[in-house]
Amino acid sequence: MNLDFLSSSDTICALSTPAGHGAIAIVRLSGSEAVSLLTQVFRQKGRKTNPEDLISHKAVFGTIETNGEILDEVLATVFKGPHSYTGEDVVEISCHGSVYIQQKLLELILSLGARLAEPGEFTLRAFMNGKFDLSQAEAVADLIASNSEASHKLAMKQMRGGFSLKIGELRARLVDFASLIELELDFSEEDVEFADRTELFQLLEKIKSEIGNLKSSFTLGNVMKHGIPVAIAGKPNVGKSTLLNALLNEERALVSEIPGTTRDAIEDTINISGVTFRFIDTAGLRHTEDVVENMGIERTFEKMNQASVVLYVFDITSTSETEIDEAIADIRVQLEDSSKAIIPVANKTDMLTEAPHSFKKLVELETLFVSAKRNENINLIVERLLQAAHPGDTGDQTIVYNLRHFEALSRAAQSIESIEKGFAEGVPSDLVAIDIRQALHHLGSITGEVTTDELLGNIFGKFCIGK
Amino acid sequence: MNLDFLSSSDTICALSTPAGHGAIAIVRLSGSEAVSLLTQVFRQKGRKTNPEDLISHKAVFGTIETNGEILDEVLATVFKGPHSYTGEDVVEISCHGSVYIQQKLLELILSLGARLAEPGEFTLRAFMNGKFDLSQAEAVADLIASNSEASHKLAMKQMRGGFSLKIGELRARLVDFASLIELELDFSEEDVEFADRTELFQLLEKIKSEIGNLKSSFTLGNVMKHGIPVAIAGKPNVGKSTLLNALLNEERALVSEIPGTTRDAIEDTINISGVTFRFIDTAGLRHTEDVVENMGIERTFEKMNQASVVLYVFDITSTSETEIDEAIADIRVQLEDSSKAIIPVANKTDMLTEAPHSFKKLVELETLFVSAKRNENINLIVERLLQAAHPGDTGDQTIVYNLRHFEALSRAAQSIESIEKGFAEGVPSDLVAIDIRQALHHLGSITGEVTTDELLGNIFGKFCIGK
Repeated sequence: MNLDFLSSSDTICALSTPAGHGAIAIVRLSGSEAVSLLTQVFRQKGRKTNPEDLISHKAVFGTIETNGEILDEVLATVFKGPHSYTGEDVVEISCHGSVYIQQKLLELILSLGARLAEPGEFTLRAFMNGKFDLSQAEAVADLIASNSEASHKLAMKQMRGGFSLKIGELRARLVDFASLIELELDFSEEDVEFADRTELFQLLEKIKSEIGNLKSSFTLGNVMKHGIPVAIAGKPNVGKSTLLNALLNEERALVSEIPGTTRDAIEDTINISGVTFRFIDTAGLRHTEDVVENMGIERTFEKMNQASVVLYVFDITSTSETEIDEAIADIRVQLEDSSKAIIPVANKTDMLTEAPHSFKKLVELETLFVSAKRNENINLIVERLLQAAHPGDTGDQTIVYNLRHFEALSRAAQSIESIEKGFAEGVPSDLVAIDIRQALHHLGSITGEVTTDELLGNIFGKFCIGK
Repeated sequence: MNLDFLSSSDTICALSTPAGHGAIAIVRLSGSEAVSLLTQVFRQKGRKTNPEDLISHKAVFGTIETNGEILDEVLATVFKGPHSYTGEDVVEISCHGSVYIQQKLLELILSLGARLAEPGEFTLRAFMNGKFDLSQAEAVADLIASNSEASHKLAMKQMRGGFSLKIGELRARLVDFASLIELELDFSEEDVEFADRTELFQLLEKIKSEIGNLKSSFTLGNVMKHGIPVAIAGKPNVGKSTLLNALLNEERALVSEIPGTTRDAIEDTINISGVTFRFIDTAGLRHTEDVVENMGIERTFEKMNQASVVLYVFDITSTSETEIDEAIADIRVQLEDSSKAIIPVANKTDMLTEAPHSFKKLVELETLFVSAKRNENINLIVERLLQAAHPGDTGDQTIVYNLRHFEALSRAAQSIESIEKGFAEGVPSDLVAIDIRQALHHLGSITGEVTTDELLGNIFGKFCIGK
């Protein structure tokens, strides 16, 4: 990947609206030549416009002309830097959304000397010009990609700077700390301690605990961004596929009467009240000599381990009292053992001819009685899923959902432990100072105080063109 | 189709940029409540904005908020009527182009009382408010749909009002004429003739001739809009499919060594220097007993009749002298007979072992010698096609490309002939006046002085949403 563009300041240009034809499309320019490029092709009532006559933020009606021919009637809006998205002069040309016009308009502007923007280059320039920090820039891409209420909220919060503020606070504290230690280094021959070691230790503990909180929010953040994995487990032929279908409200999984039909883990997602659930239909849990089926069962356990919620399904009719007791014991073990939410689901109530075995015990376990086939009580499962999954009101809590941030936080936490260990073991201050700088470096990499071209290339390369 | 919206004046709202995700999307509102709807959800630096504080044409940065949550950071631009696209108050909200945000923003505005716009409803309102006439409104949809330089130019010219002006002139002359005749009716008992019959007749001839010019431009307009139909004809196994493939630069048609393989007319288009060519590969022209193949050959003749240009392909190697002479005679007949451009193509030059038969005759006929298989001289065909097809500089000529307009012109021409006939046969003026009103009606239907709900429903129903 050629990363030259990271430090370029030429005028860039791209289509900023989605590809395809529509009523309106926007071609956007940014850079010192943006306004003068516009005035070369823009006419108001047939007359040329002087760059200085274009008022910032004012939409002006006119035509785009080339070789005396009118390409389109457009609205042009100039945003003079620094009061623009990128901080540079920005021009937005709002044209008719024909694919032909979009293409010709872009070609025309490129022919005048603009360069086609790399993905994310407008946002990169906004970052370079201090319009926002790196974590906010990353959030812009996440915001555009978000497809559920939860992921949208996360990205919006990060774009608005909540996370930046938090990291900034941590860094500021650590910088205070560092300056005291560095001061000690300057006077190292006099063997003074400017920094009260107990206070310093308390500060480190506090920073460590806050980083710990941020780190542990990552599980939640990940779930909010990518959805909550729900495994549907149970013995063969208890109706897991039918249940999944009832949940998805369509017949995607293969349903059959032969035990062990579903061998592949099938994934499907639904959106309930703004939360995405990723359903995993699994092979039945039974002992078998069939190699293929055994592989399926292995995958089932893997999937169950990845899941946050397990729907444990059993057949309320064909299951003997012993089997139900076994199922109950199974559920109890899982409930005790795991941090996962286990939801017992007694299926096939439509086939019941008498009261089920062990009814009282099942009720104690908050079992849901459903008929997947008849779509009965499926709504109870949905409600229970929401209860089990809902993060509750996260309020002002800062939630980390970006793996890069999580990793930087982990490294910062390690450096802080090294600092603490250094103090405890009486390591000389100049060595401790290295760890402090490391911790500052890792925190700074989140917000972009510290960057490399490779990092920027990675981050902005994932953007869509035109942003 | 419910046409109630044709006379509605409520506030409408739609996504105006292409569907899908991108850097920016625009949600557009139009109507008397557009600005107040915006201010219900729009905040500048967290504070509400008064509708009267929003300056027309000024892009303002702020947030869209609902229930205390920020949905997005946006740019909002108000266009106060009548200085807007529709002539009403218009608001454009430029948001981040995530599908989630687009959807939620639309839902939010609809929940406040706006109505989702019907296709073309913004342009319909522009027409209703006299921003432009019906033929210009139609051109807006054509402009957005245009995918070649030729079709784009046509639509742009019509949108800019060239055609409207022409029709307006014709109508104005006819109205002058009509008023004189109507005056005669008022004084009918006195048997005067206010209108000099010779002058009237000259005027009618002039109008008729201009309508005739417009009507005859329709063939060209149609070609410019839809592309130039090119038939590839010739005996079986002369390499027509291979030639089409060479032209299309890809292997779409079935190529085989068995004569008569291509039974269906396959259509494909390419764009050369702004002109669209629609290629028609045809079944081979030979006598056969095969019913299916015979049907194919029948279609071939149909297609050749529809084509503006015929590439007559023959095999320069396997064709005997007689056969070549036959082919030459065939081409000569077609060249004499038809207004079509016939381009003789001698294929398979790669297989030639000696100088071809009748070389001199072939050169006289401006035969192109090519090898479709080796992609040799295909560029010569392309050049010849452009020569044959190019409409030349149409300059300021008004070109009709819309079937509805063509039909209205035809009806107007018929009415004018009736008027002339009436005069010639001494029909009473009051009866002639009916024909004059008919002619005015037909011309007026083009620009929309005369409309019906059904007509408007048809025209605007073909628009995309958001325009």
